[in-house]
Amino acid sequence: MRSSPPIDRVVHALKRLPGIGEKTATRLAFFLVGAPAANVQELATAIGRLQSEIVLCAQCFDLTHESPCDICRDEKRDAAKVCVVEEPADLASIERSGRHDGRYFVLGGALSPIDGVGPDEIRVSELTELVRGGNISEVILATNPTAEGDATAHYISSCLRPIGVRLSRIAYGMPLGGDLEYADHVTVGRSMDNRREIT
Amino acid sequence: MRSSPPIDRVVHALKRLPGIGEKTATRLAFFLVGAPAANVQELATAIGRLQSEIVLCAQCFDLTHESPCDICRDEKRDAAKVCVVEEPADLASIERSGRHDGRYFVLGGALSPIDGVGPDEIRVSELTELVRGGNISEVILATNPTAEGDATAHYISSCLRPIGVRLSRIAYGMPLGGDLEYADHVTVGRSMDNRREIT
Repeated sequence: MRSSPPIDRVVHALKRLPGIGEKTATRLAFFLVGAPAANVQELATAIGRLQSEIVLCAQCFDLTHESPCDICRDEKRDAAKVCVVEEPADLASIERSGRHDGRYFVLGGALSPIDGVGPDEIRVSELTELVRGGNISEVILATNPTAEGDATAHYISSCLRPIGVRLSRIAYGMPLGGDLEYADHVTVGRSMDNRREIT
Repeated sequence: MRSSPPIDRVVHALKRLPGIGEKTATRLAFFLVGAPAANVQELATAIGRLQSEIVLCAQCFDLTHESPCDICRDEKRDAAKVCVVEEPADLASIERSGRHDGRYFVLGGALSPIDGVGPDEIRVSELTELVRGGNISEVILATNPTAEGDATAHYISSCLRPIGVRLSRIAYGMPLGGDLEYADHVTVGRSMDNRREIT
């Protein structure tokens, strides 16, 4: 194998990232060699400082640069509406949609007995405590539409129902731009079940 | 848009890389937050040092950490056989194939009149000079199988033919694992034209 150590080091380190294999890593490394120096240094610095600058928000457990995070400190947001997600990336995704004006709660995973993840491995008791603390009117369960995410939403519902809070689950259906022909039958079925009247 | 500046900085810098959009950048940034600190620092350092550690090989114009590069200094390689490629990444790809035991020459691009790239913008005269210097028995034209790459190979052939060196062009044909049904007709046609007898 031909090699220039500086390039190899970048390729080797990039290959550890999810979804980046040898070919993509090589392509990116060559791109970086020819990219504007300021941009390359900006990337190196941003990555180098990332972990030391990030903490968990003590209220919602999102990743943040200061605790409580911007969302938890934002008084314009509806603190009574809590959206429960598995991971910080899911929270970011919902924020991008712009359809939630309340707060969040990051579980830190989903129940998965096969992987040894039970209720004690994710933040179910912290969530229950938060909701029991009062002032919460609705809990939106936005765990992923997977077996694990569904099980987690179901388990959390059973924990929170006795408190008397309103519970909701994000809708299943066809993704925008999706094609019925290629969609799996469960998605199509849910999309039919959850159909909305046209008014 | 929700944001934690340290994460945003990484996302912003990653988005400048080819093939990496907002979603992938966000996914990678969250991965980096949770990745082993040593790996993350290794990546940051490798990227940060890359450009200062890389130079062009004075003989083949490949990217290298010292000139002449490892390949040009390797006496076990056949210096009489030169493989001409557009970019360093193409050289890396041919090296991965393990099917070239000679040296290389990196043109630094392909002819593209539409983009203002003529023979003076790539290293055609440097290549002609090298071949004219003697001791070269074969020039393998491994520019890309595109309109620009073909034109470049054709132009270089016309420059080198008077010198009397053997010229060859990499083969066109079906890619391994390809499907005739989905292949474009030019590729299929070339694959038929270049068929080899089974012995």
